[in-house]
Amino acid sequence: MKNEPIYNLLNAINYPEDLRKLNVDQLPEVCDELRQDIIKELCCNPGHFAASLGTVELTVALHYIYNTPYDRIVWDVGHQAYGHKILTGRREVFSTNRKFGGIRPFPSPEESEYDTFTCGHASNSISAALGMAVAAAQKGDSKRHVVAIIGDGSMSGGLAFEGLNNASVTPNNLLIILNDNDMAIDRSVGGMKQYLFNLTTSNRYNQLRFSMSRVLFKLGILNEERRKALIRFGNSLKSMAAQQQNIFEGMNIRYFGPIDGHDVRNLARVLHDIKDLQGPKILHLHTIKGKGFAPAEEHATEWHAPGKFDPVTGKRFIANTEGMPPLFQDVFGNTLVELAEANPKIVGVTPAMPSGCSMNILMEKMPKRAFDVGIAEGHAVTFSGGMAKDGLLPFCNIYSSFLQRAHDNIIHDVAIQNLPVVLCLDRAGLVGEDGPTHHGAFDMACLRPIPNLTISSPMDEHELRRLMYTAQLPDKGPFVIRYPRGRGVLVDWKCPLEEVPVGKGRKLKDGDDLAVITIGPIGNTAARAIAQAEAKFDKSIAHFDLRFLKPLDEELLHEIGRKFKRILTVEDGIIKGGMGSAILEFMADNEYKPTVKRIGIPNIFVEHGSVAELYHICDMDEEGILTKIKEFIN
Amino acid sequence: MKNEPIYNLLNAINYPEDLRKLNVDQLPEVCDELRQDIIKELCCNPGHFAASLGTVELTVALHYIYNTPYDRIVWDVGHQAYGHKILTGRREVFSTNRKFGGIRPFPSPEESEYDTFTCGHASNSISAALGMAVAAAQKGDSKRHVVAIIGDGSMSGGLAFEGLNNASVTPNNLLIILNDNDMAIDRSVGGMKQYLFNLTTSNRYNQLRFSMSRVLFKLGILNEERRKALIRFGNSLKSMAAQQQNIFEGMNIRYFGPIDGHDVRNLARVLHDIKDLQGPKILHLHTIKGKGFAPAEEHATEWHAPGKFDPVTGKRFIANTEGMPPLFQDVFGNTLVELAEANPKIVGVTPAMPSGCSMNILMEKMPKRAFDVGIAEGHAVTFSGGMAKDGLLPFCNIYSSFLQRAHDNIIHDVAIQNLPVVLCLDRAGLVGEDGPTHHGAFDMACLRPIPNLTISSPMDEHELRRLMYTAQLPDKGPFVIRYPRGRGVLVDWKCPLEEVPVGKGRKLKDGDDLAVITIGPIGNTAARAIAQAEAKFDKSIAHFDLRFLKPLDEELLHEIGRKFKRILTVEDGIIKGGMGSAILEFMADNEYKPTVKRIGIPNIFVEHGSVAELYHICDMDEEGILTKIKEFIN
Repeated sequence: MKNEPIYNLLNAINYPEDLRKLNVDQLPEVCDELRQDIIKELCCNPGHFAASLGTVELTVALHYIYNTPYDRIVWDVGHQAYGHKILTGRREVFSTNRKFGGIRPFPSPEESEYDTFTCGHASNSISAALGMAVAAAQKGDSKRHVVAIIGDGSMSGGLAFEGLNNASVTPNNLLIILNDNDMAIDRSVGGMKQYLFNLTTSNRYNQLRFSMSRVLFKLGILNEERRKALIRFGNSLKSMAAQQQNIFEGMNIRYFGPIDGHDVRNLARVLHDIKDLQGPKILHLHTIKGKGFAPAEEHATEWHAPGKFDPVTGKRFIANTEGMPPLFQDVFGNTLVELAEANPKIVGVTPAMPSGCSMNILMEKMPKRAFDVGIAEGHAVTFSGGMAKDGLLPFCNIYSSFLQRAHDNIIHDVAIQNLPVVLCLDRAGLVGEDGPTHHGAFDMACLRPIPNLTISSPMDEHELRRLMYTAQLPDKGPFVIRYPRGRGVLVDWKCPLEEVPVGKGRKLKDGDDLAVITIGPIGNTAARAIAQAEAKFDKSIAHFDLRFLKPLDEELLHEIGRKFKRILTVEDGIIKGGMGSAILEFMADNEYKPTVKRIGIPNIFVEHGSVAELYHICDMDEEGILTKIKEFIN
Repeated sequence: MKNEPIYNLLNAINYPEDLRKLNVDQLPEVCDELRQDIIKELCCNPGHFAASLGTVELTVALHYIYNTPYDRIVWDVGHQAYGHKILTGRREVFSTNRKFGGIRPFPSPEESEYDTFTCGHASNSISAALGMAVAAAQKGDSKRHVVAIIGDGSMSGGLAFEGLNNASVTPNNLLIILNDNDMAIDRSVGGMKQYLFNLTTSNRYNQLRFSMSRVLFKLGILNEERRKALIRFGNSLKSMAAQQQNIFEGMNIRYFGPIDGHDVRNLARVLHDIKDLQGPKILHLHTIKGKGFAPAEEHATEWHAPGKFDPVTGKRFIANTEGMPPLFQDVFGNTLVELAEANPKIVGVTPAMPSGCSMNILMEKMPKRAFDVGIAEGHAVTFSGGMAKDGLLPFCNIYSSFLQRAHDNIIHDVAIQNLPVVLCLDRAGLVGEDGPTHHGAFDMACLRPIPNLTISSPMDEHELRRLMYTAQLPDKGPFVIRYPRGRGVLVDWKCPLEEVPVGKGRKLKDGDDLAVITIGPIGNTAARAIAQAEAKFDKSIAHFDLRFLKPLDEELLHEIGRKFKRILTVEDGIIKGGMGSAILEFMADNEYKPTVKRIGIPNIFVEHGSVAELYHICDMDEEGILTKIKEFIN
């Protein structure tokens, strides 16, 4: 992007209907402008970058060929949908993307009728789109087209396979677009990736057939109808001729491709050609993550969500973090290596998040002891269970909100057998700009009912290290450690690795008028609010860091129950069923009758915004906690 | 089975090491005896029947060829593992199978070192076995073999695919045995089933190659080593020659088969031949569910768990249920048809449980409006979400414990969008003989934290019908209805379909000394205990049926909070975080200070036994509730 870009075509496109007025030969220019617009917006308002550059042509072709929003386009994950947002009425407000009160980070039906289904967690698009296709058929609406987009990374998720398996036998005319860029956030892994690669090398036939039919059509040898018949026939012929069908065709899903996902004219033509074919079909596209912006093409993982950058030089603005506390994830990543060096039983497992959770540190140092299993949270946990059953000690790191995918695996494949799997939940609590699909709100409330689990949350980096050390000692059983996105609170985070007594909390500060019980890093916020409250209101307030949601520190809670008439609980998890409820249960079971007030994430899906803004609106920041203390003790 | 069977060989087999002393030609006789033994045991002590008959030869061949328990055999689901139990030291106690205090319903590591991993929920064997294979490699144990068995039904589960996808790239020597009988409990469905069928018709080559190598070996033309080399080479050759590889080979998993799973000698030979091949491999077996017992072969679904039967005539002893209340599942199944007849938006979704949840009634009457999606709980919910998004009203029926598989799908694909999906949870509460993997203990506690959900449980069949009717009225959002396994309480279960006000409980009986709050059918047990307590202790006890766990009936709870000093909550869900905790939260939030005692499933994995026995040991039967009331009010 040398000069200020000119948007001759894009300026006239407010909605896809405007796009559809153009000639197909104008589409490359639209793509170029759209790509420049994304670069211009993202360089100063950070977001998911490289994925959206890779789908510019796909996005334009889809809205050009399909009658959106009447036709349904179902995105998967949603990292790649900025072009879609810009083309569907949100260009004017795109500068508010991901900001509090601004447009949402991912496609969201609440925001636009062009956004057909919740995006955020991978691999759900085929299942949701199949539902829409069936709904259209049930309502006798034979004209509606439904298109699911899915990345090759998302294809490793079991839900995608379940969707394919069902799509192949349920009557539908679904088009599944496989956006194959060999990347999730990190590089794709797994057998399916290899399989797709093999398809690529063996399916020149498909491409030839398309080109041939197009040439014959242009020469006037075929009319449109016959041309489509040739495409259909060619596909059947290939299936019959091949000794083995490819997996998709073997499942009765017609396979087309692979084709270049950056040749927008050809892409539009292919979409047009296969649009009205009956039955489920898959179109395999090759795209390049970061396409059109050289630094992003070269380092797609770094440029997945690069922060601010210079659009001309491609230099990222890396904030100076010297003197700041480390990211919790880096404390995890480095401590895991320390522990693994000392304990040969330790292995690491991540479902496609090595750089996101900093397990890449272990992967580099001990590649044979770290496993990236792909986007497959359920398998990550059950696989860890199998390793634990035969004597290893897996540290399985999963973002809190993605762990929801492995709920049964935790119960059935780990907890019932009381296996020593250490579940490290990164991104617990409110995560900020990624919004409601990504908040780690539910882990405490939803894991607490599961027998045999130890559930803990460190208040700072030292505690994280001590909990990790403790979790890998003998006979600890399944052990959950939850910690938030972002930075810790201690610059000097290295501390000796010492055992924490399981189920023991800490009295941080004594007091008489109120007991504040916290768990996790929000305890630091509470501590500041307590200090303010004591100064302002002339009261003395005790502060306890519960540290373990389960087992509860009964000794400490008896002490609190005996002494205090007022208890305030503070947690960065959903308020229903969480730590506060555990305290209520304890007090009721032991017939203490303090007045208990609870602070936590309210029982709604909290929107996106900065972490600070979100904690503020939930009354979970220093001000909110202070207000609650004031109401309580005055 | 004409005469009393004779167990010449089986009587001498206490453990697999005894089996391994036999000549391979004696194995058919062992299989015959084992099959007769299973029939003899099952005819009078009911259990899962047809699946175990189908795996007799596989079981014998596995324990004959592999050095169990040092080598790991990982079963999937566990319906098919009775032969395994009998051959691994449990023949003497097999008559206690599934009984309280007796041997467990499924393989369980707590019970036997031959049982390598928890069985119960489908599709986990590949992931767990891969973990074990990796553990062996990490520990430098190159001699241990690991075998995962998986049924074709379980192959529709996403977890199985995630396991395959990861197994194909993680160094391991895993053998995956695909036990293909075209059945789950009901007939298998989905594209993978079709794909496996295609493989069968196209892979005669594999069988020929094995036969040929065996012949050449016998003729002395090949030695053992060369014979194996031929097998290996043939496989590679086939992969290279085929224009398209099959999905397994495309994922770098060597494919062998399909072969007859009832020819035990050949099966043993094949297992022997491929045992030491490096890398992951899959052996595709064809078996017949119910093999060797004609009625079961003919009607495998009926004979999945047939109850008692006559081993000679094959006549099942169907209890006379005239005059008994109906099964809850049948009230669901029939009511769903009634509702679907009146409301064209209604569709039914079941993940492979049409006969188990009685959705087969809808499938027969309106086949286009009922969807069996295979063992794929996550997809079932997301697919329902897609249909709901485009205007349908899906009733998605999933057993409570299997719904754990769809936890994230409920949050991400239904609740965030507030979509009108009706989740009907059959088998909620303690289910009896199927034990800890199958108890529906966690749904209330784990769903309660999720925003937007309405969660209800009917006390009887009339309430179930009314709740189902209410759930499909406009604008109700996602709506959970949980009800237990087994029979209701009302013989005359048909009642008019009327709306229940959402979030409204019922006062069943007034009283002054104690308020008992219940939810679901356990309210009937509580009612009897209350009547006894009033008669015995001269107290007056109020009884409230909360009906909705969420939203809470705040008006009713204020009434209770104002009036009562003592509240007893009774629920058939896990005690941590469930209905009792919701009451505690309400009372605390509103500063009522009653003494609250809670009855529910204790925070352990409750074992197997009859439903009555289990509720008894959990103090959740009439006696247990009465005792609690007595302690509380005296």
